Amino acid sequence: MTPRKSFGSDNHAGAHPAVLEALAAASQGDATAYGDDPWTARASAQLAEAFGADGGAFFVFNGTAANVLGLSLMLRPYEAVICAEGAHLNVDECGAAERIIGCKLLTVPTPDGKLTPDLVAPRLGGRGDEHRAQPRAVAITQVTEVGTCYSLDELRRLGEFCRASGLLIYLDGARLANSAAFLGCQLGDLAASVDVLSFGGTKNGAVGAEALIVMNASLADGVRFQRKQQMQLASKMRFVAAQFSALLEDQLWLRNARHANDMARRLADGVGDVPGVRLHYPVESNGVFAALDPAMVEPLQREWNFYVWEAAGHVVRWMTAFNTTENDIDAFLAGIRAAAGVLTT
Amino acid sequence: MTPRKSFGSDNHAGAHPAVLEALAAASQGDATAYGDDPWTARASAQLAEAFGADGGAFFVFNGTAANVLGLSLMLRPYEAVICAEGAHLNVDECGAAERIIGCKLLTVPTPDGKLTPDLVAPRLGGRGDEHRAQPRAVAITQVTEVGTCYSLDELRRLGEFCRASGLLIYLDGARLANSAAFLGCQLGDLAASVDVLSFGGTKNGAVGAEALIVMNASLADGVRFQRKQQMQLASKMRFVAAQFSALLEDQLWLRNARHANDMARRLADGVGDVPGVRLHYPVESNGVFAALDPAMVEPLQREWNFYVWEAAGHVVRWMTAFNTTENDIDAFLAGIRAAAGVLTT
Amino acid sequence: MTPRKSFGSDNHAGAHPAVLEALAAASQGDATAYGDDPWTARASAQLAEAFGADGGAFFVFNGTAANVLGLSLMLRPYEAVICAEGAHLNVDECGAAERIIGCKLLTVPTPDGKLTPDLVAPRLGGRGDEHRAQPRAVAITQVTEVGTCYSLDELRRLGEFCRASGLLIYLDGARLANSAAFLGCQLGDLAASVDVLSFGGTKNGAVGAEALIVMNASLADGVRFQRKQQMQLASKMRFVAAQFSALLEDQLWLRNARHANDMARRLADGVGDVPGVRLHYPVESNGVFAALDPAMVEPLQREWNFYVWEAAGHVVRWMTAFNTTENDIDAFLAGIRAAAGVLTT
Amino acid sequence: MTPRKSFGSDNHAGAHPAVLEALAAASQGDATAYGDDPWTARASAQLAEAFGADGGAFFVFNGTAANVLGLSLMLRPYEAVICAEGAHLNVDECGAAERIIGCKLLTVPTPDGKLTPDLVAPRLGGRGDEHRAQPRAVAITQVTEVGTCYSLDELRRLGEFCRASGLLIYLDGARLANSAAFLGCQLGDLAASVDVLSFGGTKNGAVGAEALIVMNASLADGVRFQRKQQMQLASKMRFVAAQFSALLEDQLWLRNARHANDMARRLADGVGDVPGVRLHYPVESNGVFAALDPAMVEPLQREWNFYVWEAAGHVVRWMTAFNTTENDIDAFLAGIRAAAGVLTT
Repeated sequence: MTPRKSFGSDNHAGAHPAVLEALAAASQGDATAYGDDPWTARASAQLAEAFGADGGAFFVFNGTAANVLGLSLMLRPYEAVICAEGAHLNVDECGAAERIIGCKLLTVPTPDGKLTPDLVAPRLGGRGDEHRAQPRAVAITQVTEVGTCYSLDELRRLGEFCRASGLLIYLDGARLANSAAFLGCQLGDLAASVDVLSFGGTKNGAVGAEALIVMNASLADGVRFQRKQQMQLASKMRFVAAQFSALLEDQLWLRNARHANDMARRLADGVGDVPGVRLHYPVESNGVFAALDPAMVEPLQREWNFYVWEAAGHVVRWMTAFNTTENDIDAFLAGIRAAAGVLTT
Repeated sequence: MTPRKSFGSDNHAGAHPAVLEALAAASQGDATAYGDDPWTARASAQLAEAFGADGGAFFVFNGTAANVLGLSLMLRPYEAVICAEGAHLNVDECGAAERIIGCKLLTVPTPDGKLTPDLVAPRLGGRGDEHRAQPRAVAITQVTEVGTCYSLDELRRLGEFCRASGLLIYLDGARLANSAAFLGCQLGDLAASVDVLSFGGTKNGAVGAEALIVMNASLADGVRFQRKQQMQLASKMRFVAAQFSALLEDQLWLRNARHANDMARRLADGVGDVPGVRLHYPVESNGVFAALDPAMVEPLQREWNFYVWEAAGHVVRWMTAFNTTENDIDAFLAGIRAAAGVLTT
Repeated sequence: MTPRKSFGSDNHAGAHPAVLEALAAASQGDATAYGDDPWTARASAQLAEAFGADGGAFFVFNGTAANVLGLSLMLRPYEAVICAEGAHLNVDECGAAERIIGCKLLTVPTPDGKLTPDLVAPRLGGRGDEHRAQPRAVAITQVTEVGTCYSLDELRRLGEFCRASGLLIYLDGARLANSAAFLGCQLGDLAASVDVLSFGGTKNGAVGAEALIVMNASLADGVRFQRKQQMQLASKMRFVAAQFSALLEDQLWLRNARHANDMARRLADGVGDVPGVRLHYPVESNGVFAALDPAMVEPLQREWNFYVWEAAGHVVRWMTAFNTTENDIDAFLAGIRAAAGVLTT
Repeated sequence: MTPRKSFGSDNHAGAHPAVLEALAAASQGDATAYGDDPWTARASAQLAEAFGADGGAFFVFNGTAANVLGLSLMLRPYEAVICAEGAHLNVDECGAAERIIGCKLLTVPTPDGKLTPDLVAPRLGGRGDEHRAQPRAVAITQVTEVGTCYSLDELRRLGEFCRASGLLIYLDGARLANSAAFLGCQLGDLAASVDVLSFGGTKNGAVGAEALIVMNASLADGVRFQRKQQMQLASKMRFVAAQFSALLEDQLWLRNARHANDMARRLADGVGDVPGVRLHYPVESNGVFAALDPAMVEPLQREWNFYVWEAAGHVVRWMTAFNTTENDIDAFLAGIRAAAGVLTT
């Protein structure tokens, strides 16, 4: 029997066959190490062009590394980062920003994972006061940790506010592809108001590959040294680059993301009439966040792999991936309905 | 025309086909992320057993990361590391140890890349003096950066000295496989006098995979947190683990290393009678370090890829890899002889 | 004309004459540097005895340094500190904890500057999860930043909770003397539930002297090295130690603190019937926090030195010191009444 | 009986009476904390003018802090400092530079504590190579750790070399006063080729006061934040500043230094004909470094306080201070002669 599809995370999926083929193809012949190879040259040029990034594109191993390296380019030792309380950067990286950069994170509670000028502004007190860590960057996530997307207009307004306030913007784009698919926009549109961002490959079909995109050339100074020092310089970098080239080929990245989003949509639509299930955040990517009747959680988790995201409200997270099928969704929906069947209505 | 084999580094080679096949095989089905998967369980258990490591085996992305993470397990903030002046840790990691761990490196010039009790002892002054960073770990490299190997006896004597002196030993094993092949010993023999070590896969046929081996269980406390914080936790870890399982299968790691060593031996033997070429360090692994007549360097580099290792003495480094062939060696030897032909003898 | 007394901070006061005399007396003859002198031996022994501190007492230059050094003794690199959002450690130290220790601060909003088990408990999620910085210490301030005091019972209950939860307690005692005066207890009582704490001299009549008190001997290992590395080892340490001996002589520290508290009490009592002035936090030390009618703030600040503490509610902070006189208070009260006189009632 | 004068260090002396008087005088009345007071304004302006420092003068607590803060102004995270192997920065600060700045120190053996262009140049390899920490600053000490002084011409040549090589110069001036006295030059002359330097007060009669002098205004950006974050912001800063004003008054700093130098000269001259005593470094400040007959060391140390500086050659260090008297020297000389008397000549 095939084991059931995991809805635990998009990184529970394996790699896309095209990515695996690209790895094998990249293994032909010798190539200089540390990125001085044609695969890296090609993939980084492709990315820089797609984003309109004057500072270039740089490969790293994972999303935490991209966040830390990206913020490192922006901050002096006494400068701080404003971010959402629920940001991956704040919650899920074991304090990497504090340890590796040494910076303070100024966190802001948000209703939906998104920062706005109104949420950022109150964190700007104490500027010029030597007793206070000085806010210098705003870190946002697109798609956010709760599956929502900033609209292009929201990004633009935040960008204008930040520029006017002397703040740089870093964007954690571990699932940027899914936002491009949802918004129907170009990668460059997503980066237009941003100074540095990551573009995730791993959750979208890669074996393990993330790119740091430096929009502003003045921030790229030193990025190669910092990447090496932060232990993110791949020896056989062609194998990271080749994954991105595979994803960029015929917009595989977009097709993967669109499919995952579609599967989440199908799942969300399917639970619309299920008692005991209420969508908790708007479904704008490949994640469905639903508040469940408490009695449903444990029985459903016994059969299916997913996480409780917010214990308080019994909010669970169901993630789809590039390889989730309609059958997977339908089987899961049947499981959800079965779990709901035990409820006394 | 096939481009010529690179003798620049063993990481100029691609990946072994068995490793690429293992990646494809590991991509079947869903698996929990961050190492909670059967591939990781299996490969780390295999490694822990092979080394007799009570503290376990942990995958990271590259050698610099293994060195930093390994030393992190040993040091309090005011403790220092004694290492060879030419150690990769000191020279080639862009100051990662100082930045990420915050520790001082107490460097020692060595004749052949190897530390001995006599070389370490003078660095132990100032113990207990609060003005001095306190030596706590000795970091060695096996195979050393200049291609030499510690004998098991040398390792044992250094180990006894360190234990008696309250020092831990970290071993950078980026090319540990080549030393096992040269010494004809088990992995566990190499680790017997050591507290923490790395075991490199990348230079020995992997796409990109290094393992940190914690011999002493008391040092493993916190390793998972430090790995995450140091941005080395692979999301789809099965793809790193699977590379190691491929290398461990039927001792592919040893066959690869033995072959690379043999090719270096063939190269070293082949230059024995070439004028203008003098072996500079003993050939004990997959690297040949030779002092060249100055007039040969540039013409040879025009045709072949290798590095000048020590500018002063015109010492060059020629590295072989798992995929270097006898034909590659013979073609290179012909090239070396041709370059030597220009010399007036 | 004598300039008006500052109510801006207790560190706006000069030094107590007895402290200055002690400095002069300590200057007689030569003494070994870095604390190996009789003044340091005596003062640190006095402090260790007063607190019942098994780990000893160590002098540093300022309160930020005491906080950083103290927490350094408790934390591994991936461990975090739970503290009040308004803690000096979090707000007023320019991110020193993040930069120097590299740790994450997990902040908690509090109604009155005090942490309780109920406020700490929700911050303990994610223990054992390698993605999360691991809570290890709770940092409290006594007197708190808003002038309130933990009762001995509150300290005991928090201590019991922390011990049961595997948490250590650090206490920022920049104004610990004022809490001892308010509670009528011994220094040792204040430290009974605590692992490491600071004892401030500067705000209580010293020129510049803070002590780090290590209650738990197992945490004192390495404190001398960390102090040096954190740039807090005084060369002529006798001059720091002598200040503490002066403060300890005949309990000058307690008399100073009691007097400052009394002056705050006199001020608080005096504004009881003044329109437009409402006490905002309980007056339990040498600070009076009052919500003012907005129209009063600017006129009063024009004449007197004090800070607006919370802009939102027009809450101001009035600090008294060891050298504040009854006349100073009465003059200030007259000023406050004059400012209130402009209000239309 | 008055205890014997210590020749252990110039920081074994107490404080100059004028400094103690200045502390008492500075204690009059209230003053805003953290340096916003007239004493700080005056002393920092005096220092900036004396040095011709466009970036200003900033007070810190000790020499290690000055070194760390000064270098912090110059370095990005991947940049390194070239310094003498025997530099205080490298040997005597418990790894503060590595821990607090996170930078690598590239050390150079020197014959006399002084760096020259020829000694620095070989450390500049690997520039632009992302694997190498990038040399950015040269740190020198004036007076050096072995009592020698750079001539103004040596400083100028090193300065020219550094400017031409894209290197900044930091000067550790813990004993800068003694070099000004020896060279008969102005403070500004000593700083002319330097970007940032410290000016020590503590070893020259202060209770505890060091100044960081930022010559180049472009480096001063952020110095106040870094000072606070590095735990060096004095609460009652007037008491640090007042010490400097006392030292600057009628050039007390110069008179103190000149006197200490004279006493060292007297001591050096006095041992000229003593068997078993040979001057080891030129006597150019307030330290006498002498190689002793091994049999003399222990008997002399039993009676007098001084350090063995280099165990190998039985080189001892005898320091004089502002308060060393001719009688002290003569008594010590008698002691040395007595110790030498035991030698079989």
